[in-house]
Amino acid sequence: MSHLRAFVAERDWKQFHTNENLAKSIAIEAAELLECFQWGDSADEARVREELADVLTYAFLLADSLGADPTQLILEKLQTTSAKYPVERSRGTSKKYDQL
Amino acid sequence: MSHLRAFVAERDWKQFHTNENLAKSIAIEAAELLECFQWGDSADEARVREELADVLTYAFLLADSLGADPTQLILEKLQTTSAKYPVERSRGTSKKYDQL
Amino acid sequence: MSHLRAFVAERDWKQFHTNENLAKSIAIEAAELLECFQWGDSADEARVREELADVLTYAFLLADSLGADPTQLILEKLQTTSAKYPVERSRGTSKKYDQL
Amino acid sequence: MSHLRAFVAERDWKQFHTNENLAKSIAIEAAELLECFQWGDSADEARVREELADVLTYAFLLADSLGADPTQLILEKLQTTSAKYPVERSRGTSKKYDQL
Repeated sequence: MSHLRAFVAERDWKQFHTNENLAKSIAIEAAELLECFQWGDSADEARVREELADVLTYAFLLADSLGADPTQLILEKLQTTSAKYPVERSRGTSKKYDQL
Repeated sequence: MSHLRAFVAERDWKQFHTNENLAKSIAIEAAELLECFQWGDSADEARVREELADVLTYAFLLADSLGADPTQLILEKLQTTSAKYPVERSRGTSKKYDQL
Repeated sequence: MSHLRAFVAERDWKQFHTNENLAKSIAIEAAELLECFQWGDSADEARVREELADVLTYAFLLADSLGADPTQLILEKLQTTSAKYPVERSRGTSKKYDQL
Repeated sequence: MSHLRAFVAERDWKQFHTNENLAKSIAIEAAELLECFQWGDSADEARVREELADVLTYAFLLADSLGADPTQLILEKLQTTSAKYPVERSRGTSKKYDQL
């Protein structure tokens, strides 16, 4: 996180990183990642890693802007999701919780 | 990461988590995050945290599927991006590298 | 629509245009359109037109694959949306129907 | 287009429909369409039609805001794309033009 903050600070880019702009950026990079799989599932792995890195970078910057730790955010949400998808009912199915 | 893996394993969901499906899932969750800002920049922070957590969850799962560490992916990409955006030329501007 | 079909047929591209691939393509192009507005609302209009054209192209191809007319789809959905957003309650607010 | 304009005017929603907000809305609806195919290609057709209708609705509103006709935008772009993808070289392949 400190490397990321330094990278942004050196370039004076924080002014562009409103939460809204970061949310747009995450969506933009997520679509570039998706483009690796546009016509099927055989993607160039080096490119997938780069595009995933871009998604993660903006996601970490937004977490930082919210004063949150990325891993902590995941763990908190995992508790909510675990409650919505009890093991017995959700095992082996990709159905949404409201259709279980 | 181990909590996430256990969560998936208990539900036997790994069968659904092809790299392509994870990429689609990241894009879907990124758009739900964007929806918090659909009509402007005043978003409900609790909802932003939840949607960001969903993006991060699928991004971590894809990183894991690639055998990569999320923080490591970010740092590697930061080196490439630093080279594309030298401090002197990119300071204070949101222009893309090919227009600097 | 006939120009679009001929364009695809000449190149033998129908094999790539499953509904799923078209849905991915729409999302990818929608994000390229969004990229015009990544750091604010002053976008290059020529580029906006091009990216919007890409979204429309894939959306028309998906409509065609479903045997549906794009304008008809819009009009049908407009009826549903009109019922969800009665004029008296939705005038001048961007709230979602479940919060009106 | 006149039905769509009337729908928006009656609700006084034009104030929310900046080009940027419409671009975000297209991306959001495109991801809801993609969600129909999140775990595979067997999607509920009625839902696909509804989500596609939402994408088309916002895309038509953005075209209208640009003073452009949707079909015309598609046809203009088709000319550019035809030049980038000559029939002889692009037939039967999903490669991008810079890799043909």
